[in-house]
Amino acid sequence: MAVRPLVLDDDRVLPTDPAVRAVAREIFGAVRDLPLISMHGHVEASVLADDEPFGDPAQLLVVPDHYVTRMFVSQGVRLEELGVPRRDGGPVETDGRAIWRKFCSGWHLFRGTPSRFWLEQELHDVFGVNVQPSDETADAIYDQIAACIARPEFRPRALFDRFKLEILATTDAPASTLDAHAAIAASDWDGRVVPTFRPDALVHLNRPTWKRDVEELGDVAGTAVDTYAGFLAALEQRREHFKRLGALATDHGHTTADTTPLDRADAERIYAAALAGSVEQAAADAFSAHMLFEMARMSRDDGLVMQIHPGVLRNHHGGVHDAFGPDRGFDIPLPVDFTRGLHPMLSAFGTDPGFRCVVFTIDETTYSRELAPLAGVYPSMRLGVPWWFLDSPHAMRRFREAVTETAGFYNTAGFVDDTRAFASIPARHDLARRVDSGYLAQLVTNGQLGLDEAVETAVDLSTTIPREAYAPR
Amino acid sequence: MAVRPLVLDDDRVLPTDPAVRAVAREIFGAVRDLPLISMHGHVEASVLADDEPFGDPAQLLVVPDHYVTRMFVSQGVRLEELGVPRRDGGPVETDGRAIWRKFCSGWHLFRGTPSRFWLEQELHDVFGVNVQPSDETADAIYDQIAACIARPEFRPRALFDRFKLEILATTDAPASTLDAHAAIAASDWDGRVVPTFRPDALVHLNRPTWKRDVEELGDVAGTAVDTYAGFLAALEQRREHFKRLGALATDHGHTTADTTPLDRADAERIYAAALAGSVEQAAADAFSAHMLFEMARMSRDDGLVMQIHPGVLRNHHGGVHDAFGPDRGFDIPLPVDFTRGLHPMLSAFGTDPGFRCVVFTIDETTYSRELAPLAGVYPSMRLGVPWWFLDSPHAMRRFREAVTETAGFYNTAGFVDDTRAFASIPARHDLARRVDSGYLAQLVTNGQLGLDEAVETAVDLSTTIPREAYAPR
Amino acid sequence: MAVRPLVLDDDRVLPTDPAVRAVAREIFGAVRDLPLISMHGHVEASVLADDEPFGDPAQLLVVPDHYVTRMFVSQGVRLEELGVPRRDGGPVETDGRAIWRKFCSGWHLFRGTPSRFWLEQELHDVFGVNVQPSDETADAIYDQIAACIARPEFRPRALFDRFKLEILATTDAPASTLDAHAAIAASDWDGRVVPTFRPDALVHLNRPTWKRDVEELGDVAGTAVDTYAGFLAALEQRREHFKRLGALATDHGHTTADTTPLDRADAERIYAAALAGSVEQAAADAFSAHMLFEMARMSRDDGLVMQIHPGVLRNHHGGVHDAFGPDRGFDIPLPVDFTRGLHPMLSAFGTDPGFRCVVFTIDETTYSRELAPLAGVYPSMRLGVPWWFLDSPHAMRRFREAVTETAGFYNTAGFVDDTRAFASIPARHDLARRVDSGYLAQLVTNGQLGLDEAVETAVDLSTTIPREAYAPR
Repeated sequence: MAVRPLVLDDDRVLPTDPAVRAVAREIFGAVRDLPLISMHGHVEASVLADDEPFGDPAQLLVVPDHYVTRMFVSQGVRLEELGVPRRDGGPVETDGRAIWRKFCSGWHLFRGTPSRFWLEQELHDVFGVNVQPSDETADAIYDQIAACIARPEFRPRALFDRFKLEILATTDAPASTLDAHAAIAASDWDGRVVPTFRPDALVHLNRPTWKRDVEELGDVAGTAVDTYAGFLAALEQRREHFKRLGALATDHGHTTADTTPLDRADAERIYAAALAGSVEQAAADAFSAHMLFEMARMSRDDGLVMQIHPGVLRNHHGGVHDAFGPDRGFDIPLPVDFTRGLHPMLSAFGTDPGFRCVVFTIDETTYSRELAPLAGVYPSMRLGVPWWFLDSPHAMRRFREAVTETAGFYNTAGFVDDTRAFASIPARHDLARRVDSGYLAQLVTNGQLGLDEAVETAVDLSTTIPREAYAPR
Repeated sequence: MAVRPLVLDDDRVLPTDPAVRAVAREIFGAVRDLPLISMHGHVEASVLADDEPFGDPAQLLVVPDHYVTRMFVSQGVRLEELGVPRRDGGPVETDGRAIWRKFCSGWHLFRGTPSRFWLEQELHDVFGVNVQPSDETADAIYDQIAACIARPEFRPRALFDRFKLEILATTDAPASTLDAHAAIAASDWDGRVVPTFRPDALVHLNRPTWKRDVEELGDVAGTAVDTYAGFLAALEQRREHFKRLGALATDHGHTTADTTPLDRADAERIYAAALAGSVEQAAADAFSAHMLFEMARMSRDDGLVMQIHPGVLRNHHGGVHDAFGPDRGFDIPLPVDFTRGLHPMLSAFGTDPGFRCVVFTIDETTYSRELAPLAGVYPSMRLGVPWWFLDSPHAMRRFREAVTETAGFYNTAGFVDDTRAFASIPARHDLARRVDSGYLAQLVTNGQLGLDEAVETAVDLSTTIPREAYAPR
Repeated sequence: MAVRPLVLDDDRVLPTDPAVRAVAREIFGAVRDLPLISMHGHVEASVLADDEPFGDPAQLLVVPDHYVTRMFVSQGVRLEELGVPRRDGGPVETDGRAIWRKFCSGWHLFRGTPSRFWLEQELHDVFGVNVQPSDETADAIYDQIAACIARPEFRPRALFDRFKLEILATTDAPASTLDAHAAIAASDWDGRVVPTFRPDALVHLNRPTWKRDVEELGDVAGTAVDTYAGFLAALEQRREHFKRLGALATDHGHTTADTTPLDRADAERIYAAALAGSVEQAAADAFSAHMLFEMARMSRDDGLVMQIHPGVLRNHHGGVHDAFGPDRGFDIPLPVDFTRGLHPMLSAFGTDPGFRCVVFTIDETTYSRELAPLAGVYPSMRLGVPWWFLDSPHAMRRFREAVTETAGFYNTAGFVDDTRAFASIPARHDLARRVDSGYLAQLVTNGQLGLDEAVETAVDLSTTIPREAYAPR
């Protein structure tokens, strides 16, 4: 097979119709170099606190990216071959070059996927690669990236500045001491890296680690957590700690969107039962729903923006979870009932000026049916943009087409990259800006919007809207 | 900010591809001036019976339009500031000019929404406005509209004629005496304004007003309603009254699509319990479903076309409902199960030449999965076009793309504007005709349909099909 | 009405944008003449074993095609008028010419439908018709087709060869002796016609014919089926027989996607109860789900590829079913829960190299939410392409847009025509290749894919991928 060049079309993903493309180009030109606001992601703060060089190319681009590894798994490759560590410490591939060759040999699997878009742009723009991955080019690309990451200008902070990151939000457990965030704040580097409060492990009573996690929470908070009241106090204490280190938001992943509150006595009883080690599934589910409501109450009180993204059945394949742990590509979406699920929370806090929530989904059916009607009327709610499986050209376009007509642009919340892959952040924002520019360009070309309005809207979607959506209340 | 001109692109919303647009223009040209058939709306007959001048611009275009007010509410504006009356008579803004200024200051919120399209066309075509609303232009536009509506040619009947309304159907409670309709019929004006029979308040036993409503029904019908048999007789009597005043259809908004009939004894028992003031929710739901089946039976017997639009959780925010009543933008859609829900009704009447139903949804997932397959085989069923949140360019396009391939064009039912905003009726029909012309133009351009067939189909969608769909059976 | 010519646009269904169309043409040119791989259909093997001339034009193109007859039914035509036989032997139209005239008079009903596309291409390319059906042209077209089918080059085998069918899979009951397949294999004709094992009637205990079917199974298998163990043994024996006659796959239509296995004792108990004639609906449903799991186990053991297509409420109108039997257009889709439903099966076999399943849906909501995430990670699963109501231009395009970004191209399974209408097979594959070429062309034109990669992918979708998807494991 001939070596294929890796060339980035400057108009990539923009509409193909020449008249629309010309307008899209103009709109995109106004936003492509704006700073990046990354309010929802999974980069570890320690990466920027330590500022050490990244590992080898496979460790940087393949091993930790479950978008990439799941595609190989779907074609019969074992996670061991891709260097994904086993929980039992069993043998896995450790040779970065071998993993990289495997990756390059499956490059065709990514045709039409956003991973292809992100990786191409990352290889080309960050590392200067100009041939496509293949069996023939694997070694040369590996060497080129390895040479880059050994250089100081490819260290995390240098890339952060080069990427024009205005702010980067991490995702952190309540018991985290946030030492890395403190270290960054105390350093002479002025990058803004803020924590996000994610209490999922503490509100799902049936997780095997729950008791250990809640004890750790108590220890860090310096609060007795042997009662429900103590548990709430510990959470409130940690939220304050997060706020002191810059946190703007919380983050909540639940199986359903249920936010039905419990009577205080029921919550206390279920919490006590869980501590005693005997909670039933229905009670655990009721407690999870109750805690979403309580978290909304706390957000109303302390001003942290509440991010909610329900509807995923985690660890669909038990065997893979046992061997490799969570986040291995086997989390599969479910239908979500937002209309009824969010009803208690929005009835209580949805028109309260002190409360702000941002709601995400991977159940697209809820866009036009539920989320746009809700975000289009509740002042406390903003509609989160497409994320995870939907962070892709067609899905982002479907999002705008499905929600704008009901909720407009100004009830959405700005792009979130949600990534563990630090070097992919610019490509992800770039793609979203291209899709939004294309959508706006169509409104201009078919006479629904003025070009100046479209440019203004594109700028707002990139910066004004996310800044406002996550502003302290 | 500079004043932006309000110019209507003659090709607005038509496809952007030049070849497709040229065809769409030709198709649209054949239908843009056809008369308007408005079979489903919420304009009050008294407006046309009295033929008084409209109120001030805010009362005409802002206050009663929940599409407009909800968008402001979503951005933190209170309904009081928009002049929406409180149920307790508490203070709200009464200065039309102040409300209008608030409206103009939020014009950007409507970018990409159908409200923007309708309002632009209404401002421009009906009132001759040629600048976009903004803080700078608010007063001038207000004055211009106010001057118009003081003139005789802007009175309701004059606009009705100018709009080329062939027929306008209103929505009316069964106990309505329909005096306004009778007055119009008795007048020397020849506009056709017909009532529509909407019995929702009477078939949902758990509504607080149910007992009062059913007593009122009995009074108006001159029938004792203290038994279920009397209740049915009163409904039948009112349907006859509606038919005498020109009614062609009934209209049914339910939470679900369930049409399961009850045994006569069960229906009698539940009805008696409701009269006694003690009906449980499950029994009330079963009675609602049963009454949909009964209404289908009555339609089969008297030939009124039955319009069904299930799947909305009304008054999602209790506080807003308590303060301002229903229809304030807080009605949120739900998923609907048409396949199982309509099964009893369609099994009983779906192939009966005497029965016709038109089924609407705001759950788009049912278009290709349920409604097109049902409408594509049951002769008694027509598929209602997009309505409410879906009455918009992308949503209307998605409708045609989702249903035509299974149900064709001739099992759909023609555009319904469903509006309270009388002056927006032409813009709404115009938009639908543009979208349908664009869809047909694509079929022509990609070789699936002849241009002459496309023109014929567009004309049928605008006039022939709705006339046939609502023709007495 | 003037006679309309029937001309096939060589670019039909390709994108309208000239730049995209030029690319699409190039891609389509590489695949339009590739052989047809028809892995899932309903043509009877006896048609090719007997190789008799087809019946009259109505019997060939109208009477057996429920896509065509349901459209007429939806407009008030009775199935009797279309010659569909009644179960009670009651009178139906038998004059082929009369049926054909009825069909031609409703040609406009098919505007925008895939039936129109298929029929046009079939009439034009197979039978040389060059005018559109209408009242005026009905007789001439009838005569032209009738003259064709009397000629030897229009016999089934001749058409099979002319259509370039590489393989044709039929659908067969487990008790079928497959004599027609054996006859074809023993003949001097080298067309490849293979059976597919469809055990639905045997695993749904509540079907009225179940007991008779299971006894017939025992007779043919030569196995006592008075125990559950004997039932399984009989099924395994038949699968082996099917494999000997070339079968590559099994086929399973269930109401839900549930694959929860039962304890052996429960399965035995329910089976015994069914034999005794007293199984409850819940037990029957549990048994159906259990049998899907068991069929997966057998597939893992014998290598037959398992095709699953759940989510249809069959025979929605009882009266039509009573009068005319199944498959009359009254099968209506339901929502499907694949994430939870397939969980037991995929947890057990989803990473087993010996197992392969292909999963189909007509609930489009599951494409991006469930099926693409599942097929994008489980190596044993391939995602079936759009089928039945979704085998149409817009629906096929939506499929690629919804699943490619998550699952890529190489986790899908290749086009299936699923047809009873033998002469429509080429048109169906042609349409799918056009849609896929258009989709790929857009990726090329907007800079996401190289043209050489797009051509390679189109070829893979047409031949490599279906061959691999159905290859014995």
